[in-house]
Amino acid sequence: MLSRVFSAPRLFSRGFSSATNDKYFINVNDTIVEKTKAPLQKFTDKSKLIFGKDFSDHMVEVAWDSEKGWGAPKISAYHNLSLPPSASVFHYALECFEGMKAYKDSKGNVRLFRPMENMNRFLSSASRICLPSFNKEAVVELIKKLVLLDKDWIPEGRGYSLYLRPTLIATQKSLGVGASNSALLFVIASPVGPYYPEGFKPVRLIADDRYVRAWTGGPGAYKLGSNYAPTIFPQLDAAKKGFSQVLWLLNDYVTEVGTMNMFVLWKNNQDELELVTPPLDGTILPGVTRDSILKLARQWGTCKVSEKLFTMAELAKAIKEGRVKEAFGAGTAAIVSPIKSINYKGEEYPIPIDEQIGAGPFTNKVANAIMDIQYGETDSDWSVVV
Amino acid sequence: MLSRVFSAPRLFSRGFSSATNDKYFINVNDTIVEKTKAPLQKFTDKSKLIFGKDFSDHMVEVAWDSEKGWGAPKISAYHNLSLPPSASVFHYALECFEGMKAYKDSKGNVRLFRPMENMNRFLSSASRICLPSFNKEAVVELIKKLVLLDKDWIPEGRGYSLYLRPTLIATQKSLGVGASNSALLFVIASPVGPYYPEGFKPVRLIADDRYVRAWTGGPGAYKLGSNYAPTIFPQLDAAKKGFSQVLWLLNDYVTEVGTMNMFVLWKNNQDELELVTPPLDGTILPGVTRDSILKLARQWGTCKVSEKLFTMAELAKAIKEGRVKEAFGAGTAAIVSPIKSINYKGEEYPIPIDEQIGAGPFTNKVANAIMDIQYGETDSDWSVVV
Repeated sequence: MLSRVFSAPRLFSRGFSSATNDKYFINVNDTIVEKTKAPLQKFTDKSKLIFGKDFSDHMVEVAWDSEKGWGAPKISAYHNLSLPPSASVFHYALECFEGMKAYKDSKGNVRLFRPMENMNRFLSSASRICLPSFNKEAVVELIKKLVLLDKDWIPEGRGYSLYLRPTLIATQKSLGVGASNSALLFVIASPVGPYYPEGFKPVRLIADDRYVRAWTGGPGAYKLGSNYAPTIFPQLDAAKKGFSQVLWLLNDYVTEVGTMNMFVLWKNNQDELELVTPPLDGTILPGVTRDSILKLARQWGTCKVSEKLFTMAELAKAIKEGRVKEAFGAGTAAIVSPIKSINYKGEEYPIPIDEQIGAGPFTNKVANAIMDIQYGETDSDWSVVV
Repeated sequence: MLSRVFSAPRLFSRGFSSATNDKYFINVNDTIVEKTKAPLQKFTDKSKLIFGKDFSDHMVEVAWDSEKGWGAPKISAYHNLSLPPSASVFHYALECFEGMKAYKDSKGNVRLFRPMENMNRFLSSASRICLPSFNKEAVVELIKKLVLLDKDWIPEGRGYSLYLRPTLIATQKSLGVGASNSALLFVIASPVGPYYPEGFKPVRLIADDRYVRAWTGGPGAYKLGSNYAPTIFPQLDAAKKGFSQVLWLLNDYVTEVGTMNMFVLWKNNQDELELVTPPLDGTILPGVTRDSILKLARQWGTCKVSEKLFTMAELAKAIKEGRVKEAFGAGTAAIVSPIKSINYKGEEYPIPIDEQIGAGPFTNKVANAIMDIQYGETDSDWSVVV
């Protein structure tokens, strides 16, 4: 087996120990709300929604500069940003983001799913690229204000939601490569439909070792724009060959699938039923869905639950020996994405799928358990009523 | 020694074999020039110029979309860009750029240095992230138009220049992670002074293996914004400890220094005087200055010239044994940046510097030879009179 140096993800801060420092404090009480005077064209047929294509009437903006700190938050009509062509976000990829959703439950309440988990990661990403710190609670409050104002933009029904995209970009006007002296935090919202409108659609993967998404000592554990740009070509290349997604390897170790975390349910070498996912060693995005699945599986106690390294060679061997029961990707967009086969070194490795539901029973159980919480069908402190 | 898999940088194209395809052809004859009506405040004291802070009166813009291809190029007053907050450049770092300069020679002619080399790399970077192809000559022509129009913004004197920043960004309005269906190519220009106004200032480096800039299978050989964002924190961390730059290692192999290519002049194990720089194996930016230095050194024939891998352990050993004569970084901004010491595993490794000139004689010779060409003092087809 190839050697691999371990490194835990490191957290960073921009020379300030507390987010209550004035320059890194967003005052929600100062929020200026300017309701739109020109409402946007709202979807009429929710079944035709395309991910991230339409946006709701309003957006949140908070500007920061190194002298004055965070300014007054503003919620106003969705509008273009005006930035100098020298702004560092255009040159050095000084940008990070989050993906989260607002759900409407059967009683018409608006709900968020573990929003503080997204804020923890958002702050961690910002710090990794020297963007300013902020009080996380304030951003959650601003998101709540936005989703209440644009409540009518949340499509109703299980699987439907308002996708939220908190983003933080560097707006410094000069070309020197360094920490930006100004930044803009914004949140936009896009109504979206279920990832699988007609039941699960299991995917074929290609484990392509010509491209590596993240590596030890790199920024793979942060939700930075810079982790996405280089993945698009390999993804198109995979699609041309008939595969849905790339299974990302690092020295043959399985890391992520497409833009999702990777899970396998197998009989391990000790003949135990085990749910396994790669550990947060700095090369893996710490997914909120990943964490939720691990916590649920540990609660259920129906299998061993492990965060540990495994190679594609090990996985291929286990598939050949019939030990792999299920495999799936996990992320905010799809919750779970069942995997039906992996192409590795030119060979196809098929993974069992229950043809009736398009997923294995564990994968299906996970999806339903999380959706039940998101839509308020199961009581849980993971679901926050706005 | 640690193993390292080799991979040559791969070039990519977006499913089109020729840049003469209409959708990927910029027609310079269509250029619209709108001279500024509000000239910007021009520098009065060229000695006070700060890199990338002031911009000249005009900028170039060419917009592309997947249906209509490249539109008419436009040269107009320097102005803000207006983009939707959903534009993919803000989220997935779909952006690449070039750094080049226009020089004024002693006769008042405006000159560019090997502009097609920058265009070759620009196109290669664009292709790596699925941004549209273009006819490279057209972009050079547009740059020429810009520098002639803003000729008065080129500060006079050896070491002074107008820094040019061709940039290509994805402007797609939707949040799906994929190839952008629209893009904007722009060029801005900033008057700059010499990197070393008072003679060379040799730098102290730290070889910090906690952070890795680029890795095998990653996009390190392309000038993408995404290669820069993650380097800023390590750079600040190094600065806090009193070092000027990070010497980037990959499995202990020396790769780059700060944002420059790395050169060492040493007596190798065969007791030959050898100029060595890491090879273009996909983890190194193919620098135009790097290439120019290699070509000059090969022409001079005063030492062996090698593009090959070497580890920091090998370099440290050579320094200890007194075999390292000079070391320097190479890039467009500084041409060469002499290195006076490297901190490695807590130990300081000093490199000889001629105290009189602040650099070794070879480093100094390289800088002068390149500047002589850039400012037209030496005849060379590398210098293009505009």
